[in-house]
Amino acid sequence: MDSPSLISQQLLSDPRVAEATKLLSAALAEHSTRLVARGPSAELAEPYQKWLDTFAELRGNPLFFPYLGSGAGRGALVELADGSVKYDMITGIGVHAMGHANPELLPELIPAVLSDTVMQGNLQQNTESLLLTQQLVTLANRNGASLEHCFLSSSGAMANENAFKVLFQHRIGSSRVLAFENAFAGRTHLTGQVTDRPKNRVGQPLTVPVDYVPFYDAGRPDESTQSTLQTVERYLIRYPDSHCGFIMELVQGEGGYYSAPREYFVALCELLKKHGVPAFFDEIQTFGRTYSPFAFQMLELDEYADVVTVGKMSQICATFFRKELNPKPGLLSQTFTSSTTAIVAATWILRKLLEGNYYGPQGRIAQIHSKFVSRLEAIRKTAPDRISGPWGIGGMIAFTPLDGSAEAAKKVLHALYEAGIIAFVAGAGPARIRFLPPFLSLTDDEIERVCDIVESVLLSEQFNS
Amino acid sequence: MDSPSLISQQLLSDPRVAEATKLLSAALAEHSTRLVARGPSAELAEPYQKWLDTFAELRGNPLFFPYLGSGAGRGALVELADGSVKYDMITGIGVHAMGHANPELLPELIPAVLSDTVMQGNLQQNTESLLLTQQLVTLANRNGASLEHCFLSSSGAMANENAFKVLFQHRIGSSRVLAFENAFAGRTHLTGQVTDRPKNRVGQPLTVPVDYVPFYDAGRPDESTQSTLQTVERYLIRYPDSHCGFIMELVQGEGGYYSAPREYFVALCELLKKHGVPAFFDEIQTFGRTYSPFAFQMLELDEYADVVTVGKMSQICATFFRKELNPKPGLLSQTFTSSTTAIVAATWILRKLLEGNYYGPQGRIAQIHSKFVSRLEAIRKTAPDRISGPWGIGGMIAFTPLDGSAEAAKKVLHALYEAGIIAFVAGAGPARIRFLPPFLSLTDDEIERVCDIVESVLLSEQFNS
Amino acid sequence: MDSPSLISQQLLSDPRVAEATKLLSAALAEHSTRLVARGPSAELAEPYQKWLDTFAELRGNPLFFPYLGSGAGRGALVELADGSVKYDMITGIGVHAMGHANPELLPELIPAVLSDTVMQGNLQQNTESLLLTQQLVTLANRNGASLEHCFLSSSGAMANENAFKVLFQHRIGSSRVLAFENAFAGRTHLTGQVTDRPKNRVGQPLTVPVDYVPFYDAGRPDESTQSTLQTVERYLIRYPDSHCGFIMELVQGEGGYYSAPREYFVALCELLKKHGVPAFFDEIQTFGRTYSPFAFQMLELDEYADVVTVGKMSQICATFFRKELNPKPGLLSQTFTSSTTAIVAATWILRKLLEGNYYGPQGRIAQIHSKFVSRLEAIRKTAPDRISGPWGIGGMIAFTPLDGSAEAAKKVLHALYEAGIIAFVAGAGPARIRFLPPFLSLTDDEIERVCDIVESVLLSEQFNS
Amino acid sequence: MDSPSLISQQLLSDPRVAEATKLLSAALAEHSTRLVARGPSAELAEPYQKWLDTFAELRGNPLFFPYLGSGAGRGALVELADGSVKYDMITGIGVHAMGHANPELLPELIPAVLSDTVMQGNLQQNTESLLLTQQLVTLANRNGASLEHCFLSSSGAMANENAFKVLFQHRIGSSRVLAFENAFAGRTHLTGQVTDRPKNRVGQPLTVPVDYVPFYDAGRPDESTQSTLQTVERYLIRYPDSHCGFIMELVQGEGGYYSAPREYFVALCELLKKHGVPAFFDEIQTFGRTYSPFAFQMLELDEYADVVTVGKMSQICATFFRKELNPKPGLLSQTFTSSTTAIVAATWILRKLLEGNYYGPQGRIAQIHSKFVSRLEAIRKTAPDRISGPWGIGGMIAFTPLDGSAEAAKKVLHALYEAGIIAFVAGAGPARIRFLPPFLSLTDDEIERVCDIVESVLLSEQFNS
Repeated sequence: MDSPSLISQQLLSDPRVAEATKLLSAALAEHSTRLVARGPSAELAEPYQKWLDTFAELRGNPLFFPYLGSGAGRGALVELADGSVKYDMITGIGVHAMGHANPELLPELIPAVLSDTVMQGNLQQNTESLLLTQQLVTLANRNGASLEHCFLSSSGAMANENAFKVLFQHRIGSSRVLAFENAFAGRTHLTGQVTDRPKNRVGQPLTVPVDYVPFYDAGRPDESTQSTLQTVERYLIRYPDSHCGFIMELVQGEGGYYSAPREYFVALCELLKKHGVPAFFDEIQTFGRTYSPFAFQMLELDEYADVVTVGKMSQICATFFRKELNPKPGLLSQTFTSSTTAIVAATWILRKLLEGNYYGPQGRIAQIHSKFVSRLEAIRKTAPDRISGPWGIGGMIAFTPLDGSAEAAKKVLHALYEAGIIAFVAGAGPARIRFLPPFLSLTDDEIERVCDIVESVLLSEQFNS
Repeated sequence: MDSPSLISQQLLSDPRVAEATKLLSAALAEHSTRLVARGPSAELAEPYQKWLDTFAELRGNPLFFPYLGSGAGRGALVELADGSVKYDMITGIGVHAMGHANPELLPELIPAVLSDTVMQGNLQQNTESLLLTQQLVTLANRNGASLEHCFLSSSGAMANENAFKVLFQHRIGSSRVLAFENAFAGRTHLTGQVTDRPKNRVGQPLTVPVDYVPFYDAGRPDESTQSTLQTVERYLIRYPDSHCGFIMELVQGEGGYYSAPREYFVALCELLKKHGVPAFFDEIQTFGRTYSPFAFQMLELDEYADVVTVGKMSQICATFFRKELNPKPGLLSQTFTSSTTAIVAATWILRKLLEGNYYGPQGRIAQIHSKFVSRLEAIRKTAPDRISGPWGIGGMIAFTPLDGSAEAAKKVLHALYEAGIIAFVAGAGPARIRFLPPFLSLTDDEIERVCDIVESVLLSEQFNS
Repeated sequence: MDSPSLISQQLLSDPRVAEATKLLSAALAEHSTRLVARGPSAELAEPYQKWLDTFAELRGNPLFFPYLGSGAGRGALVELADGSVKYDMITGIGVHAMGHANPELLPELIPAVLSDTVMQGNLQQNTESLLLTQQLVTLANRNGASLEHCFLSSSGAMANENAFKVLFQHRIGSSRVLAFENAFAGRTHLTGQVTDRPKNRVGQPLTVPVDYVPFYDAGRPDESTQSTLQTVERYLIRYPDSHCGFIMELVQGEGGYYSAPREYFVALCELLKKHGVPAFFDEIQTFGRTYSPFAFQMLELDEYADVVTVGKMSQICATFFRKELNPKPGLLSQTFTSSTTAIVAATWILRKLLEGNYYGPQGRIAQIHSKFVSRLEAIRKTAPDRISGPWGIGGMIAFTPLDGSAEAAKKVLHALYEAGIIAFVAGAGPARIRFLPPFLSLTDDEIERVCDIVESVLLSEQFNS
Repeated sequence: MDSPSLISQQLLSDPRVAEATKLLSAALAEHSTRLVARGPSAELAEPYQKWLDTFAELRGNPLFFPYLGSGAGRGALVELADGSVKYDMITGIGVHAMGHANPELLPELIPAVLSDTVMQGNLQQNTESLLLTQQLVTLANRNGASLEHCFLSSSGAMANENAFKVLFQHRIGSSRVLAFENAFAGRTHLTGQVTDRPKNRVGQPLTVPVDYVPFYDAGRPDESTQSTLQTVERYLIRYPDSHCGFIMELVQGEGGYYSAPREYFVALCELLKKHGVPAFFDEIQTFGRTYSPFAFQMLELDEYADVVTVGKMSQICATFFRKELNPKPGLLSQTFTSSTTAIVAATWILRKLLEGNYYGPQGRIAQIHSKFVSRLEAIRKTAPDRISGPWGIGGMIAFTPLDGSAEAAKKVLHALYEAGIIAFVAGAGPARIRFLPPFLSLTDDEIERVCDIVESVLLSEQFNS
């Protein structure tokens, strides 16, 4: 889509642009190199606390972590405005998969800021949006899925909202949703009802009935598969033609990083298919992080994918759907797709996923996973009361600290933060600690250092029972 | 929040950054200057159509306009990827108020792309988000409103979703919404129900009852005020303690750019107050475009503002709410606030609004409005069957073409597009043409040229009856 | 259906049955004759109050009137257990249209108590139910309606519940109801939502959205007709294919006894027809009481009747519906149709309606109405501040006492009760006093005496302002 | 409440009333005695079929059984209008517990037909309603329950509707219902949603979410108890403060006549109590039929009874509730309580229950149950492939015919009907045949004859596999 006759192209070809990019890259590289893990600067403690207080007051509630980034970072390391530098193992819950201040990405962003608009939307958008859509659809269907259509949006919740709009219109008259127990689908009025977390919806009217289905239990494979199928079947009989679809995270995200074997999902999807209920794979957290770009590709469920959403590490979120589900004009639209920088970053990330050696049993994700696992296993051997698995899947790493109680997980989480690691919790019964490391740039050395800290925190006296 | 000890600050102070900014600014200025309104390039016609077709296929539905921006622009002018350059009078529905490729904005964006992450979110955000929140709250309360809290989000729909979450939690047990007829509140499951447009929600289950209230009618001021109040009162009696709030656009946006006098809103807000029903001013389209930064400030309704949302021209969207409505922790959160570029652009825009002479009876917005109006009035005098007012308010300009039918408006809209003006429709019965021009950079000359085109299109033979 | 070979027939033909009937009739006649309007017996005052208190305690709330019938009565007169004898002008809200202890009805009830069961239901019912159904269908269609089917039930609320079930199944996917403002449709979860009275549903979740439409206003015929039609049209456009039907009382019952001319209903029904929305005439209160057996017959709306319900004076309630709306097996069923006595009473009442000279402009109902009206008009002439019309329609008589306030109506109601007339209120703004006299037996003399009391109460000093 | 000064009392004391009663009783006794089980009369076959066809046409759907009673009966025997006389083992689904044409009941009904009105309602009712309410409350609380209040109504569905109204108002803001899987709660819009049977609500909008809980499984006592408690707990955590109550049949009625031990219900009720969720015992089918007048009395759950409903064999239905749940005035009301005959029949039935020796381990119900069981057990021993237990509880007798499939049950049901026994199905997986015999009059001889027929039908060749 580049024609020399376009002024936009002439601008980008201007040697001053190249020169400026070089200068910025050099400056970034030089300064970033100086970042090392460290504690906060004493002199910044007071103003930092003031900023945190001000922000808490403005927002109405304090931030979860006392975290205000300074804007500097390098790979897993991030500088906060109190001068501390930490290992970011949660990356905004999986968003910054490319690491902080990735030097390869910078040259991609320069054209974006030279572009005419900060934001792009549905009515007026630039060629980057088309390119990104094309890239996404190609990637989604590369193993045989039939996700002909793709609609970009600015957040995962919006991608899921769009998915539900498509599904409800497809199943005219439906008003219910099938979902797994412990599902997390977002925080809008609708997706917050699908999300199996009462705390997120205190006081909200519950208007769309969600029929929850127990997930696979690796400890009781056959029994739990039967339980899933029977529960689904009972709902389908009890409420015929009433479900717009079954939203499923193929690896439970907020639910604790558990997955299930292919056969489980095949049996489930076949049952849904028999009843004409679309399968909706919510890959907002899993996208990019398993052993294939999509978890449904890893599990070879391509033929069952009716609706798929992606988000987080893709920067731009998207809703894929089959031709048969294509809604009438007027249903899908929005002012904002996202910013031009996010769109070009998404394009760059997708290119990396395809061109880098990230996937498959020998891919970088598998390596990263096994490095983490071998360190976590070792800690468990030393101190079986301090940590237990399973350890998640791919670039989604998790462990159960101490006794698996919610308080234990919270304590460990904050102790890790103090010690220089940003992580998060997931699941309940047991509550777990999870990592979504910046796998696109993560080095083995970073893994070692992070695991050293995890070990020392877990084995520290504060957790002696 | 800038400490010389922070590496982020050292990077931004690096002379190479300044040098690069100068180079990019110069290149942008030079190339943009060459943009003039023109038709498409013949050689690009075929590939352009192919791109449009491809995009239509990928999205499942064609774009509304055959619009794919090239990334070049200057002020009201925008270059499309077919080589044409048009006057953008709708700016992505009011988003690009600063004009295309604003040269003043570019230097603000360079630090954003040097910053460590493309996107920011609720768990991990940088100091820019705090600064922006502070700026927004100060602006909102400058005439005495009590909107103590503000929560940023990535789209107007999300800002409204957050507003409704706050409202529902505040009015525990409520499950209904009060809204004006022809309201537009977004396109999520919830806001799409508030939006008074069946076409946007074909097949969606309607789960949150919306009690619609007729808006002010300038032709029957007393009668329509009474009708509004009586309708509201009837709903409040019929469904006691059932409404989370009354969402109102103080200038009907998608409804056609009508407003009402202060007394009307005061009477309405007093009635709501008496019943404990919060007033929710949806300023997603009005923000920045009336004769004060907020329409509620223009109408001196500051004391009645319980919840306010802004979006579009602010790049970042936000939900403001009173201290009394502050929800419990856990209700408001999201992965994405928006991109770092959008956040710094928002900050720059807010600064412009405050420092520039945009508001008040002599402000630039009033000037722009009166220039458009005098031209439109003149056309009406010449050809009263081709155009009629009212003409909107401030930076929201509208007119009724021909007989006010939906088809007439559509035809005129596309004729304008062909002639080099991008506009949009609004309202129904009558359907109107609306402009949301890039008022932060709009020149008198641009207004004249746009009005020349409007005039020639409206008077052209194709619209002879 | 009577075969001499059936033991049931042999029993009824037994001369002892005839003899017993004669004895009971004679006793009833003799004792009833002694009833005259009178105040309570002093000796019963104390036990009576105790019974009332006990009942209030058992029910959880006191009775509306301090009314406990003794079981004796004659025509409009009824004996209470405190020894008082009053004129019953409300007849259990229109139920006892045949008057108290009607001597003609007694012989009909004897076979009912000899019958094998007290109650009849859907699984096992006797031939009386078939006969009654046949009678009802014949009556409903006698002027050309196409109400092929009829389903009996035990209460008006159940008849309306059945109607809504039929309508919802007919309009698959619909979930809304159209109704007139001030509608009264019953007190179940569903019908209580249609009923436009918040007090009746305090704390109930509102789950079925009701789109209320303003009724005809005799003071503004054209304008109010337009308002009705426009409101309906707006709802139909706003919520396409979403309404199961429009429930309408052709004479507003609890709403205050207002009706509208044929043209009004024709215009409305035509509009509904155009949109495929069934017209549902709720005749639970109007049945039998206008100038035709059904109000839709009086208004010549036979062709528009899609669903009709009757109740109250029919003793047994029923839902009529067109063939096209006939639901699948399994939708309609219930344990109880009603008691055998109620079924035979219903049959007798229907026979009376047909055979007596009740309907038409010269019928007994018209006579009764005009007698009441001439007396009420006379009172109004004497004391225009004490009473105003309109006076209702047919056997539904109403007047507005004093200033039309709710308190005034309540005071007059209780003053009438004290003075020996049992009536009730209806409507709001203004609140009215209504009569549903026992028109099947009502004598001119009874009317005179009732009106004498009304006059003396209204003119009494207690209502001097 | 009988004062000689009341004319109502004078009438009833008139010797002609006694004389007439004697005559009617004699006639009834004489003719009834001649009833013996027999097939239809050939001469009536044709007209009978015609009546059935007419009724099917009028109702829109055929009757379930080709049953039209003639009005004659004696105990378990009932004469149909085709001249056949059958054993009624289902009694209108438990209604006619006193048997057909019970000669003791007749004298009670005579005063009812002499009474002034056929129907009684909420506004105007006679002293019988007070007496009945008193009797019911006394009975319900005789073992220590605290059901201070009782509201009569005309059907079981209405009694449950009233119960839900009370519950929803008590738990302000609640909008969900807890219920057992396979619950049957009625067929109104609301209760039809609680009823776990999709066929009953085809096309109805589902508006009140019901959270279904698995019932006790006698084959896995501990596991199923745990499963019940965990399921309830999960719902209560997922939807805090959202349930108006838990409706439970202590013996699953339509679900197949299964019960659970006291400990099970105690554990469940304690859990509910802890969360402030009222226990609502739906005894519409169980009332009178277990080993105590109420099943909650049999299970000694008196202290847990928050709301209780009764119906069917009580003729009049009723809703009992604790003082703490007493709603505000205006919530409970209705035109019809029921007919006067039903009210006096109810009073007589309650007196019988108390004065007869029906309850306890040696009571008549236990005898009847054991007689049926010993016969059914014997058949099972002979032909274990034709019948299996469990056999229900008390006056609710059930067995699983053949392989427990729905078709098998249906075939056996109709074969029994042909052979002279009226029964019904219940449950699913397995489907069962159930009896609700007229236990107030049932003789041992009738049981033997019924079981003879059951045996011969089950062993007949038609069911050879």
